[in-house]
Order: sequence, then structure tokens, then C-alpha cells
Amino acid sequence: MRYINELRDGEQVNGIYFCKVKNTLKTKMGKSYYALTLQDKTGVVDAKIWELNNGIEHFEAMDYINVIGSVTMYQGSIQLNVSRVRKAGEGEYDMKDFMPTSERDINEMAAELKGYIGSIENTYLKTLLTKIFLDDKEFFKAFTLHSAAKSMHHGFVGGLMEHTLAVTKICDFLAKQYAMLNRDLVISGALLHDIGKVSELSAFPSNDYTDDGQLLGHIYMGTAKVNDVAKEIAGFPAKLLTEVSHCILSHHGKLEYGSPKKPSLAEAIAINFADDCDAKLEALKELFDSNPTMPAYSKMLDNVVRRTEGIK
Amino acid sequence: MRYINELRDGEQVNGIYFCKVKNTLKTKMGKSYYALTLQDKTGVVDAKIWELNNGIEHFEAMDYINVIGSVTMYQGSIQLNVSRVRKAGEGEYDMKDFMPTSERDINEMAAELKGYIGSIENTYLKTLLTKIFLDDKEFFKAFTLHSAAKSMHHGFVGGLMEHTLAVTKICDFLAKQYAMLNRDLVISGALLHDIGKVSELSAFPSNDYTDDGQLLGHIYMGTAKVNDVAKEIAGFPAKLLTEVSHCILSHHGKLEYGSPKKPSLAEAIAINFADDCDAKLEALKELFDSNPTMPAYSKMLDNVVRRTEGIK
Amino acid sequence: MRYINELRDGEQVNGIYFCKVKNTLKTKMGKSYYALTLQDKTGVVDAKIWELNNGIEHFEAMDYINVIGSVTMYQGSIQLNVSRVRKAGEGEYDMKDFMPTSERDINEMAAELKGYIGSIENTYLKTLLTKIFLDDKEFFKAFTLHSAAKSMHHGFVGGLMEHTLAVTKICDFLAKQYAMLNRDLVISGALLHDIGKVSELSAFPSNDYTDDGQLLGHIYMGTAKVNDVAKEIAGFPAKLLTEVSHCILSHHGKLEYGSPKKPSLAEAIAINFADDCDAKLEALKELFDSNPTMPAYSKMLDNVVRRTEGIK
Amino acid sequence: MRYINELRDGEQVNGIYFCKVKNTLKTKMGKSYYALTLQDKTGVVDAKIWELNNGIEHFEAMDYINVIGSVTMYQGSIQLNVSRVRKAGEGEYDMKDFMPTSERDINEMAAELKGYIGSIENTYLKTLLTKIFLDDKEFFKAFTLHSAAKSMHHGFVGGLMEHTLAVTKICDFLAKQYAMLNRDLVISGALLHDIGKVSELSAFPSNDYTDDGQLLGHIYMGTAKVNDVAKEIAGFPAKLLTEVSHCILSHHGKLEYGSPKKPSLAEAIAINFADDCDAKLEALKELFDSNPTMPAYSKMLDNVVRRTEGIK
Amino acid sequence: MRYINELRDGEQVNGIYFCKVKNTLKTKMGKSYYALTLQDKTGVVDAKIWELNNGIEHFEAMDYINVIGSVTMYQGSIQLNVSRVRKAGEGEYDMKDFMPTSERDINEMAAELKGYIGSIENTYLKTLLTKIFLDDKEFFKAFTLHSAAKSMHHGFVGGLMEHTLAVTKICDFLAKQYAMLNRDLVISGALLHDIGKVSELSAFPSNDYTDDGQLLGHIYMGTAKVNDVAKEIAGFPAKLLTEVSHCILSHHGKLEYGSPKKPSLAEAIAINFADDCDAKLEALKELFDSNPTMPAYSKMLDNVVRRTEGIK
Amino acid sequence: MRYINELRDGEQVNGIYFCKVKNTLKTKMGKSYYALTLQDKTGVVDAKIWELNNGIEHFEAMDYINVIGSVTMYQGSIQLNVSRVRKAGEGEYDMKDFMPTSERDINEMAAELKGYIGSIENTYLKTLLTKIFLDDKEFFKAFTLHSAAKSMHHGFVGGLMEHTLAVTKICDFLAKQYAMLNRDLVISGALLHDIGKVSELSAFPSNDYTDDGQLLGHIYMGTAKVNDVAKEIAGFPAKLLTEVSHCILSHHGKLEYGSPKKPSLAEAIAINFADDCDAKLEALKELFDSNPTMPAYSKMLDNVVRRTEGIK
Repeated sequence: MRYINELRDGEQVNGIYFCKVKNTLKTKMGKSYYALTLQDKTGVVDAKIWELNNGIEHFEAMDYINVIGSVTMYQGSIQLNVSRVRKAGEGEYDMKDFMPTSERDINEMAAELKGYIGSIENTYLKTLLTKIFLDDKEFFKAFTLHSAAKSMHHGFVGGLMEHTLAVTKICDFLAKQYAMLNRDLVISGALLHDIGKVSELSAFPSNDYTDDGQLLGHIYMGTAKVNDVAKEIAGFPAKLLTEVSHCILSHHGKLEYGSPKKPSLAEAIAINFADDCDAKLEALKELFDSNPTMPAYSKMLDNVVRRTEGIK
Repeated sequence: MRYINELRDGEQVNGIYFCKVKNTLKTKMGKSYYALTLQDKTGVVDAKIWELNNGIEHFEAMDYINVIGSVTMYQGSIQLNVSRVRKAGEGEYDMKDFMPTSERDINEMAAELKGYIGSIENTYLKTLLTKIFLDDKEFFKAFTLHSAAKSMHHGFVGGLMEHTLAVTKICDFLAKQYAMLNRDLVISGALLHDIGKVSELSAFPSNDYTDDGQLLGHIYMGTAKVNDVAKEIAGFPAKLLTEVSHCILSHHGKLEYGSPKKPSLAEAIAINFADDCDAKLEALKELFDSNPTMPAYSKMLDNVVRRTEGIK
Repeated sequence: MRYINELRDGEQVNGIYFCKVKNTLKTKMGKSYYALTLQDKTGVVDAKIWELNNGIEHFEAMDYINVIGSVTMYQGSIQLNVSRVRKAGEGEYDMKDFMPTSERDINEMAAELKGYIGSIENTYLKTLLTKIFLDDKEFFKAFTLHSAAKSMHHGFVGGLMEHTLAVTKICDFLAKQYAMLNRDLVISGALLHDIGKVSELSAFPSNDYTDDGQLLGHIYMGTAKVNDVAKEIAGFPAKLLTEVSHCILSHHGKLEYGSPKKPSLAEAIAINFADDCDAKLEALKELFDSNPTMPAYSKMLDNVVRRTEGIK
Repeated sequence: MRYINELRDGEQVNGIYFCKVKNTLKTKMGKSYYALTLQDKTGVVDAKIWELNNGIEHFEAMDYINVIGSVTMYQGSIQLNVSRVRKAGEGEYDMKDFMPTSERDINEMAAELKGYIGSIENTYLKTLLTKIFLDDKEFFKAFTLHSAAKSMHHGFVGGLMEHTLAVTKICDFLAKQYAMLNRDLVISGALLHDIGKVSELSAFPSNDYTDDGQLLGHIYMGTAKVNDVAKEIAGFPAKLLTEVSHCILSHHGKLEYGSPKKPSLAEAIAINFADDCDAKLEALKELFDSNPTMPAYSKMLDNVVRRTEGIK
Repeated sequence: MRYINELRDGEQVNGIYFCKVKNTLKTKMGKSYYALTLQDKTGVVDAKIWELNNGIEHFEAMDYINVIGSVTMYQGSIQLNVSRVRKAGEGEYDMKDFMPTSERDINEMAAELKGYIGSIENTYLKTLLTKIFLDDKEFFKAFTLHSAAKSMHHGFVGGLMEHTLAVTKICDFLAKQYAMLNRDLVISGALLHDIGKVSELSAFPSNDYTDDGQLLGHIYMGTAKVNDVAKEIAGFPAKLLTEVSHCILSHHGKLEYGSPKKPSLAEAIAINFADDCDAKLEALKELFDSNPTMPAYSKMLDNVVRRTEGIK
Repeated sequence: MRYINELRDGEQVNGIYFCKVKNTLKTKMGKSYYALTLQDKTGVVDAKIWELNNGIEHFEAMDYINVIGSVTMYQGSIQLNVSRVRKAGEGEYDMKDFMPTSERDINEMAAELKGYIGSIENTYLKTLLTKIFLDDKEFFKAFTLHSAAKSMHHGFVGGLMEHTLAVTKICDFLAKQYAMLNRDLVISGALLHDIGKVSELSAFPSNDYTDDGQLLGHIYMGTAKVNDVAKEIAGFPAKLLTEVSHCILSHHGKLEYGSPKKPSLAEAIAINFADDCDAKLEALKELFDSNPTMPAYSKMLDNVVRRTEGIK
């Protein structure tokens, strides 16, 4: 497979790409053509199909397509002139080659997550986590492949799990440093804090807000899911359920950020810090990785930021 | 029964009052005495028990007690000197004589609420409302006696239902004036918007925030209750459940007021207006009723307000 | 008359349109041509006059012009190629065919407004309203044809009266529901609250901010007009004039929205709610009417909104 | 006259004071007595009348009274024990001895104000100022004795004129430094900017918000007064009236400070700066004058402030 | 030594306490007496000296005094009636018995701090830290005994070092978790971020804002101190000095919290998080330690908070 | 020299311009060409170099270049077709012909500044100002040519000194009007308040934020410079240095505008007013000078503003 960031002017291309956008436009002469945006995990490229003949089989946006064509330059950017297209079959491609994907191995992350569940001592919390993450295979698969956001930070395959683990790791550290933190509660809250995102955002390749996401939000949906599962666990202590629910509800830290309650428990405060810290440092990392020149504006931090240079 | 606002200097008193506060203090001489705050629906009065002898039977704050004593003046205010106390039995008093209570008849309000449920055409919403308000007698009794707030507005027995009906009535009017509003949805949302307050505040006489109220809040708890009940209704349309849930979640109108989502549906906007309008006008009414002199400061409106005088 | 939203590629056109924009441009060859925006009540269309010969009589932007030409497609949109133009005479057209116009009949609305004036019991307020709306024919005609805003909501012919009536109707309802509201005052305040907009915005077709509008605003100008007229009414009670003035001054509800005083009277609070409620629901209606696809962003509500779909 | 700040423990007093507060209280024994607050320009003192006999003639709060009594200490403060009281006649006292009063001579300030009016070149503005300040003797007397605020800054007799002149002087300076400023407009706006305070606050001795002040505010009332007077001046240019009105309406600088329009003219911006600068520096001066120890909290500046000490 | 929290009604006392407040008051009879507030590390107690005879030697507030007297109850609280006082000599007491003091051992913390300095690899930063913390013995002693705040959090002897180490430890953890963080810079910035507090607050026992603290603040003073010392280090790279200075200047995270620059470097963001996290969790811990009953209001978090109870 | 605002279609040009931007682009045919932005003090003009032959000597953006070419029109704007280019030598041009420059004479302004220094009575402040402005010739030259901002206001050669003098002049006036202001301190603070801008912004022609400017800011850098110089002055009183430092640190008036401390001294308040007043009035002046049509939007004032017209 020839990755998009390796394409060079004048090359011939024959490979599979994910078709993110497909518009039907007209030339000044009134002739129809397609303007596409093709994507793989290394980036996106504009493509044009000028001749809509038999070589162009039916396809839609969000399809994986096999493309034959040539690379040209247009206004300083690479562009594909496509002569043949056919939809790719399911076995022909691996989604992870076409979507931005976590640098961490997904199986390794899943194992780390299971390790955290295994470390919980409280029976009820351990059962709750087991039922949500381990017993429900479909949910867990969706969780492992989901992004943590449409953009902003961790907007890639595996991003939700990567973010969840980073937050949990910070909480684990804080539980060691601050004796008042109950480790079981803070680890459980960290693991659960963003599970509502599996419903708030659709899965890849679309990775966009769902209707439920817009009307209810991941904070409500995640808390509700935890409560639904806890009801199936005989004797789950009411106060403990309230506390773990509070950790999820309040994890954005402030009402104006969408939490209906501010954090009132030490564990909830720790989770809010860990979440905010990982989101911002990861956003910074992604900005540094994608911007060769510094300084650059970070929308998430609403500030002009820059790589450190004083120590080589 | 002799109401507190009728007590006069020099009178003898023998009657039942609600003991809201009971403190054990010491005189300068080191002798213990009780300082009480007694309450009925007309107000509160300070009371002192200087002699802790056999005539003073055991009681606690939040008990209804039969008090014998005399009325005196102290620093310009009425005060009770109590010589005998005994706890009142359950049948001796009616809570509504001792707590601030709605001016509207509770049965009449309950009938009005049932009338609104009867007017809903959509089967699923009608079933949902029936199960919540009519089938669950215990919940409905609690709902009819609850206050809508600890203070601020409708802080009296029956206040939650009175507020709910006022909001529903405004929504009913708006549904007639604005054709785009779906009457079934806006009426259902209005009836349900504050049901979480039954869990957020404890019942009278204490009428104070519960632990769940502080950690989860009525917005989350009300929405969760609606979803729990809807799950018992076969075929309840998912989109409809999302929409009625959104109406509850968003009814505070802004994130900084504790709604995790701003209103995105016309019906949710209407409910937010009706809720805000009734809360503020009722708060104003209560201020006017309790303040003979104008202008007066309204905490809820954060403004100095006054009765209109230009037209007699 | 052929409406703009009915024009089809290839048609010949001969009709009157309102010329909203007229620019003189040059082709690459250096030849002058006109680029116009033509408007009727159904929308706008770009038009070009490539040959500036005798067939093109003198006209300016904001003129009504009779246009002869042909309809073509350019970059997916309809466009007019105009060969002849002449200014239309006053009797040849009716402004309401060319401007966005209220869906309600203007005479019917005027009658409704007079009905509200007729229902006022207080002599002074009734005289005040009569002098402003009924005795001053010129003002009343302007009022009936004005928009309520440049954009945002009710930005069409008759929009100011439509909005005024909607606000008054809500206030009438609230006066029934809340006994503390003085109906005469709240209805008068509602009818008068936006009369300053007749001076703040110029009349159609331009419908733009005037100099006085920018420097003084409709809140001040409306209040000042009421005071000027009230001075002509012998014995108008000073306190009543202050109260009705306060209702106008405070109707934006908050200082940061341009009211120099927050509402301090129950009637002023009711008017503020009614104004805000109607403005937002009408803005939503206009958004739904003009956006086939949902969700859509509402600038006025600063939120992504959507039509309700759960109940068909 | 013996000033309050000169009273010493043990002295006998016989003099006239302004009675700011008069409360009728009861001793523990049930005997009525008066608790007064007496005031002169040097401060206030508590006074008690224990024996309500014939020597205590009838008087009310806000009366000037001749008091005979003795000075005692109570809880570290001076207090008056009063044995005889009679109301003082109008000719017996001069209000300026009893109220906080400007350090500047009132006649001298009036002359300075007239000088500014004389320096205006534009006929219409000069006529406007003459009619408001010079022709209306009653208004001018009220203006010269008014305070600029209930508290905050310039809360003393003559304070409104002192503040008006200071603002005008700063504007006069700015008109010299910035050529784009029209001196006639900026001086007129400065002289007129706070004339509404004569209606917003009652005159001394009460110096408190009037009903009109609370419901309409000095910004609206001042602008309305200028417009009423301008209507009497034949040919007053409409645009000029709009501009001077804008200077008054916008002089608080921001909507949230109660101006319905932000300053849009250079002169309006200059007046806003001058007003804010003088208010804050005067508030600081009054704080320094009344607080021997530093640092001290300034409510107006919302900051802990201090006298400069680095240069003796 | 008898600690204040062990004093019981009726006991005789003979011991050394820190005199925090000394007021000279008068009884109703006009006799002078002293009202003191005495303090040790376990709390404060009111004390009265009714007889100012020879047994009461001269002392001032902020002195350590040997007190002989008896314990009494007054209005439900312990109080000391003092009969003899003399100032204690320097060797008679240890400040740490009288002031709230860190639970951690100060020498142990000093060793931990030195360990962090030893772990820095960059020569310039290591020299900088060595000169500031190790070479300047006087500064280091002050640093080790200082509080981190007047109240809010870590307001005790050793609090500044305890807070500094906690922040550094979090940063050390983050440097391991996020590869983009330069450990030398983030550790140096963490160690230095609050050194300006040694000048902003006076040392114990007064522990109050200094004049320089109020006018310049610890953010400026700390940065300036770092720059002054760096100038003494030959060849200190300018860019590195800018970066470490930026970490100190920006550590409050937002302009409105007093940082003149928002964090623009990853290390500065990490320090801001660590500082905020430790300050808030420590404030919570102190609240939990001092409030037996929950929930309680935390001023720093502006929220009602509570100990976790769901897991025993 | 032919100024850019005098170039006319069809002319031949042979002159020196400042090359602000130089991009290498390609035509559709794949041929490289240069797209330049040339600048002199009267404005900017686009230029194209289609033939990159020997006549085009090497140059970079930010170079002064001698250009030979012809003036053409493109899309309604003047454009230069350049046939020959060579870099200009240092003696061939005067920077002030190519950059926007103060309307005031720079030597005259320097003299005025020296006059203010001469008027200072306090020896230490006078020495401080002398060492900073007069003894350090290099700094003073930079100061005299610097702008006060990248855009917003005074963004031209000499702008920093012009602004500094305007602020100082206002402070001088205020020191006369308000006796509590110490003239030496307020004048010194005014002269020094923006000296950090010499380091925050690079010199012309680039006039852009430096790395130190972004990471440290002119408020910190200016204060630090003053402290560095003061340390060289034997006996400089510590309190005086704190006060003058405070005047610089606090001159933005609010934390959210980047001052780490709000003004706490009368002189600091005066400097903040003078700075804000001059910045805003100058921004308005620049807007009026560059916008023939009114009203216009001012970004700095966040308002639509307009020239005054009521008085011709």
C-alpha cells in the first residue's frame, strides 16, 4: 500500500483508500465530475474523477475504494486524477490503516485496563467494572476502537482507551501520594469517566456526534449506564453507587463545562485533574507533532504555545 | 390551636408546636437550659426552658411537642417561657398546620395534574406519565407534599406540585400560540421536569438537601427515573425517550445553572422559559407577601424590587 | 409576476424586481458591466448586465426595476442575464411582493392591537395608547410595516407588529395566571415596549440601523416618545408614567443587554419574559423554516438546535 | 457650636445637631427610651434619652434639634445622655454645618461652571447650557448643593458640582491634547453628564435614592431633561442633539455599568474616561482622608490600597 | 507543657504561650484590662487579665509569655483568667510548639529537596538551584520554615517546602508519563515556582502579607530572584533562563489568577497542573481534618464537599 | 522616490522599496515566479516577478530592494510587474521612508522626554531615569524608533515614544489637579511604564513579537530592567523602588489584562488611566484617519464608532 504522505508528482497509483467526501460538481462546460477527499492514516488528499465512464463503479462517501490514477500537482498540493474506481471488499483492508490510530498497541492497552480492574479490592466495584468492560464483549470492542473526541485530543482509533488509561495512571499515582484518596473509588471512576463517549460519538470511520450525543451527552449517558449495570448487582451499596456516579457526573469540574455537579469528593477532584491534565498535554503533543514551525496556536489551550528549546 | 402569629405578651399557652431547633446552653451561673425554636405554619418563635425538671419530658428537634408556658417580651420580640413539655402523639396534629403550605388545595391540584395526563394523545408518553404519577402511589403522595426548593421559591408543602402545574399551564398556552411546539412533548416535559426534587430534598418537616441531592442533583435523578420507567414500557420509541430526557436535562437553560445540555428542541426552550418565569414571579409574590415595606431586595432576582403603585 | 424561487434555467423573464445591490465591475478585458442582486419576497438572485447600451435606462440600488433577460446556470446557481432595464413607476408594484413579509394579515393584526387598547381600563394609559397608536396615523402606518429587527427575528414587513402582539398575548395570559400583575400596566408596557424600533431601524426596503438608532437605541427613544406624549395628557399621574417608562427601559432584562435598569416591577419582569420567549421561539421557527437539514446552528440561541422527531 | 469630633468624656453639651436616626426602644424593665444618632459635618454620635419627660419636646428623625446633655463613654465610644430637646428653628442653623460638605467654596465652583458655559462657541449648545444651569434658578440651586452619590465618591453637599467641574476640567485638557475632540461638545457633555442625579437622589439631609432614581436612573433622566430643554430652542440641530444625548447616555462606558449604549464618539469616550478617573481618584482621596492606617480596602476599586510612602 | 486543646475548666495553668492578640479594654466601671488571644500549635484560647498589677510584666502581641492563671468557662468556651505574666526568654520555647506545623519532618523534607537538585542533569539549572537553595543558608532556612499561604492551604511552618515537594513529585511523575516534558526544566520550575513567597509573606509567627508582597507579589519576586542569581552564573543560556522564568511567571495558569502570561510550554502547563492539584487536595485534607461533621463548605473550592463514605 | 500611493496604471518605476513578503509560486504551466509585497510609508503594493533571469539578483523578504518594472491594474488594484531587482545598500535609503512613522518629529519628542526627566526632583528617580534613557544610548535609540504595538495603536516608528509622552503629559496634568499624587513618582512611572516593549517587540522593519516577548511580556521585562538599573544606584530606597515597580507591574489595571497586581497606589491608578485613555483615543484617531466612511468597527474598542458631525 502506498501511503498518502508518500505520493509524489507524476506517480501512478493503484490502491485502496477511504473516501471521506464525495461531491458531484460541474465544469464550466456543464459536464459532471466527482471531487473526492481520500484518506488513510497518514493524511488526506484531494482527488478528481473527470470522466464518469464504466471504469467508475458505484460508490459512496464513507466507502473504502480501490483507486487507479495518477498523481499531479495543483496550486502547490498533490492531487489524484482518478481513472478507475471500485468498492473494496471487507477483507481487502484493515480500518486501522485508514484512520488515525493510537501509537500504542490496542491489545497491550486492553491488558493494562484489565490489570487495573484486577487491582480493585472492593467486590462491588470490581463486579461493576467486570460486567461493563469484560462481560460485554461488543461494548468493549467498541470502547477499544473509539476516539476520545471528534477533534481536540485523542481523536483517533484507540484514543478513548489511551486517554482512559492515562487518566487512570495519574489517579493511581495520586492515590499513592494523597492518603485520603480511596484507591478503589478513584481508579473505578477514572476507568468509567468517559464510557458515555461510546454513545456520544459514532464509531470510526465517521467519528461524529450522534443524536443522543447532542441531546444527552456522554456525562449523562455514562452515568446512566453505570447505574443500569449496578442494578444487576445484588447488594450494590447505594452510597457507593452515588459516589461513583458523582465521580462521572462531575468529571468536567465546572458547571459551565457541562458537569451538572461540581466535584464534592476528593476522588472526584482527582479525576477531574487527571482528565484535564491528560487532555491538555495530549492536545499539546498532537499540536507539536503536526506543526513543524513554532509558535503555534492551540485552540484547546486558547494560547500560543511552543516547543521547549533551552535544553537540547 | 393558638397560632404563633397570634401570641400576645402575658398570655398563657397550652398547645402543640413543631420544635425546629433545640440547643442546650448554660447560664452565666453554669446552669443548663434549653433554647428552642418552635414553628407552626404562621411563623416561628423563640422559647426557653429554664427549669429542666420532671415536667420536661424527653424530646428532640424535629419532634412535635405539647408546650405549656407563658408569653413574654424580650428585646422587642415575643418569647415563650416553657414550664411543661411532652411529645405529641401522631394523631394529635396535622403536619400542614405546622409547615408553610400551598394556598391551593392539594386534592384540587392533584386532579388538575391528572387532567393534564388525560389530555396527552401519544400512547407512550401517556403510559409513562401514568406509571410515574398515578401507579406509584407512594411517589405521588411524596410528590404532592414536597416543596419545590429549600428556599428561593415554592418552599412549602405542596410547592412542588403547585410549581409543576404552573409551568405546565404556561407550556399549554405556548403550545397553542406556537404551532411548531408538540403539545404532548411539552406538557410531558413540563410535568416531569422537577420530579427529581422528590429525591433531592427530604420531605417535610426537614425539607433539606439529601446526600443524593448534593452529589447527583434533581436534574440527573429525574432523567434517570424517567428512563427507568420507560424501560418497562414495551416499544417506547428510543428517539422519543431521548427527546423527553433532553427536556428534563436542559430545563435550567444554561450549563452554568446545572443543565449538562442547553435546550436544543423548541419544547425544551419553552419548558425552560416557563420554569424560569414561574420561579421568578412566585419568588416575587412571596417577597411581596412577606415584606410590608417596599422596595425590598430579592436574592433570586438579585435586584431591589417593589410593588406597583401607579394604579390603585 | 414570476417569483424568483420559480425561475428555471433557460427561461425568458420580463418582470419587476427590487434591486438590492448594484456594482459596476470590469471584465478582464477592461469592459464595464453591472453585477446586481435582485430581490422579491421569495428570495434573491444574482443578475449581470454585460452590455451597457440604450436598453439599460438609469437606475440605482434600492430602485424597483423592470427587467428583461434570460435565466442561466452558473456554478450550480440560477443567474439572470439582463438585456433591458427601466425603473418601475410607483403604481406598478406593491412593496409587500418584494420584501419578506409577515404571514399574518396586517389589517387583522392592526385590529387585534386596537382590541388590546380597547380593553385597557385605566383612562390615562388608554389615552396614552390611543394618542400613540391611533391618533398618529403616520406613526401607526410605519409601525405596522416595520420589522422588529435587522436580522435575528421578525426581520420582515409587519414583523414589529407581529412581535408586539405575541408579547402582549403572553402578558395577557400571565396577567390571568398571576394575580399580582396589573393587567392595564402589563398590556400597555407590552404594546409600547418596542415602539422605539420605528426610529432605530429605517423602513423597508432598506431596514437598516439609523444614526439615531446607533447612538441612542430604541430603548431610550421609545421611553422618550412615551414621555413626550404623556406630557400632553392633563393629569397623567407621575408615578404611573414612571412605572410604564420603567417597563420599557428594563425590557431587555439585564444591563449587559442594553437596559439601563433591571426590571423592578412584576409587570416589567413579565414583559421581559414575554419578549425574550417570543423572540427566541420565532427565531427558532424561522431557522426551521429555512433549514431543510437538521441539526442547525442558531446564532440567537448560540446553540445547535433541531426539529423534534420523536412523535410523527 | 461644639463639633461632634471634639466632644470629650464628662463634658456638658448644649447645641444644635441633626437627628439622623430616632428609635423608640424599651429597657429590660419595659420602660421606653429614645436611641438617637446625631450628626454634624464632623461625624456622628449615639445619644440616649432615658427620661421622656416634658423637657423632651416633640421631634422626628431628619429634624435639627437643640440638645442639652452630658458626654459619657460606653464600650470605648463617646455617647450623649440627653436631658432636654427642642426642635431648632430654620434660622438657627446652617445645613452646611451638619452635612459633609465640599472643601471647595460653592460660589467659587458656581463661577467656574459659568466660566465654562461662557467659553462654548456653538450657539445652540451655549443656549442649552444657559437654559439648564443659569435660567432655572431652582434647578441650579439644587445642583450646587447635591451630592454626586449616596456613598462611593463625592457623597457630600456640593459634591455633584465638584465632580462635574473636575470631569469638565479633564475634558478641557484632553480637548487640547487630542485635536479630533470637538471642545464645545466634550465640555457640554461633561457639564451635563450627571444632571440626572438631581432627580435620582433626594437633596440633603436625606441624600437617598428616589423612586424615580431607582426605576429610571440618572442616565435616562438626564438625557430626557436635555431633550426637553432643547425642544424649546428653535432650530437646535437634530444631529447635534443626538450627539450630546449620546454623550450622556454612554458616559458609564459599558452596558453592564448601566449605559444603554457604549461610547461611539470620541467625545463620549473622553467623558467616560474623565468621569471614571475623577470618581476613582476622589474615592481614593476620601479613603485616605478617613483611614489613618494603611493598607485599607476600597470598595469602589475592589482592591487593597495604600498611601505612597517612598518619597517623604 | 499543657497544650491548649487539653485545658479543662477549673485547672490551674503555668506555662508558655504565644500571645497573638493583646487589646487594652475598659470595664463598664472604667477600669482597664487586657483581652488576649493565646496560641499554641493545638489551637487558640481567649485570656483576660483583670488586674494590671506588678505581677503583670510588660509584653506585647507576638511575644511568647509565661502565664499563670486558672481555666474557666464563659459562654460555653474555655477561657483563661491570668494573674501573672512574664516574657519568656529565647531558649525557653521552640516556635514549632506554638505554630501550626507540617506533619512531615523538616529535615527529611530538606533532604528530599536536595535529592531533587542532585537529580538535575543540566549544569546551568543545577548550579542555579544550588546557589538559591543550598549556598544561601539564610534563605534556605527561611524557605524551610515558611508557610505556603496565609490561609487557604499549607498555612503552617514547613508548608512552603511541603507544597514545593508535592508539586515537584507530581511533575516528576508527569515527566515519566509524557515524553515531551523535559525533566530538568519541569523539576527546576517546580522547585522554584513559589520561592517568591518567602518575600511575599513574613515569617512565622506573624505569617502575613508584607508590603512588597502586596505591591509586587510572589510571582514577580520569585522570577526576579531567579534572574538575579542566574546573572551570576557565567554562560547561563538566555533561552533557558527565559524558559525557566516563564515557568514561574505562568504557574497560576490564567491571567485572572495573577500570572502575567499563560503557560506556553509543556513544562509550564505541567507545573500549573501540579500546583493547582496539590493546593486543592491539601486544602481538602485540611478541611476534612478540622471538620468532624460533613458536608462542609470549602472556600478554596467554592463548593460544599464531603468525605467519601461508600467504602469503609 | 515615487511613493506607492502615487503609482498609476501604465507608469514605469525605478526605485527602492521594502520587501515585506516574498513567496515563490508556480504558474499552472509549472513555471516558478515570485509574488512580493512591497512597502513604503504610504502603503503596500503587490508585485510579481514572472521571469527569474539574471536581472533578478538575490534578495530576501525584509530586504530593501531597487526595483525596475511597470505598473498595471489587476482586479481593480495597482500591481507591479518587475523586470529587474537588486538589493539596496545601507546608505541608499532611510528606514523612515518605508515604515509608518509618527507624525511628530522624533528629535522634538526626545527633547520633550528629556525635559520631563529634568523636572524630576527626587534624586534617586532622576538618576534612574537618566541611566535608563540618557546614559544607555543604544537603548534610547531603540526606544525612540520603536512602535508601541504590533497593531492596535501607535504601531509605527516613534510610536512608543509618542505614546509614552502622551501618557506622561496626562499624568502631569492629573498631578496638578489631584494634590495626593506625588508628581515625581507618577511622571517616572509614566515614562517607564512601557520600556519593556523595546524587548517585547523586535525593531522595525519586522516589528513583531520576540520569543521573550511571548514568554515573559513587556510588563515583567520593564519592571526587571528598572530593578537591574536601580541596583547600580547606591542608596536607592527600597520602598521607592517597590513603588515605582508597582506602577509598572500594575499599569494594565486588571489581572485579566496581564498585570500581576491591580493598582494599589494613587499614582499607579493615574498611570493606568492615562495609558488606557491615550491608547483608545489614538486607536480612534488612526481609525478615523484610515476610514473615509463612517461608522466603522473598532476592534480595540469593540464597538462601532463614528466621527462627530453635529458641529461643522
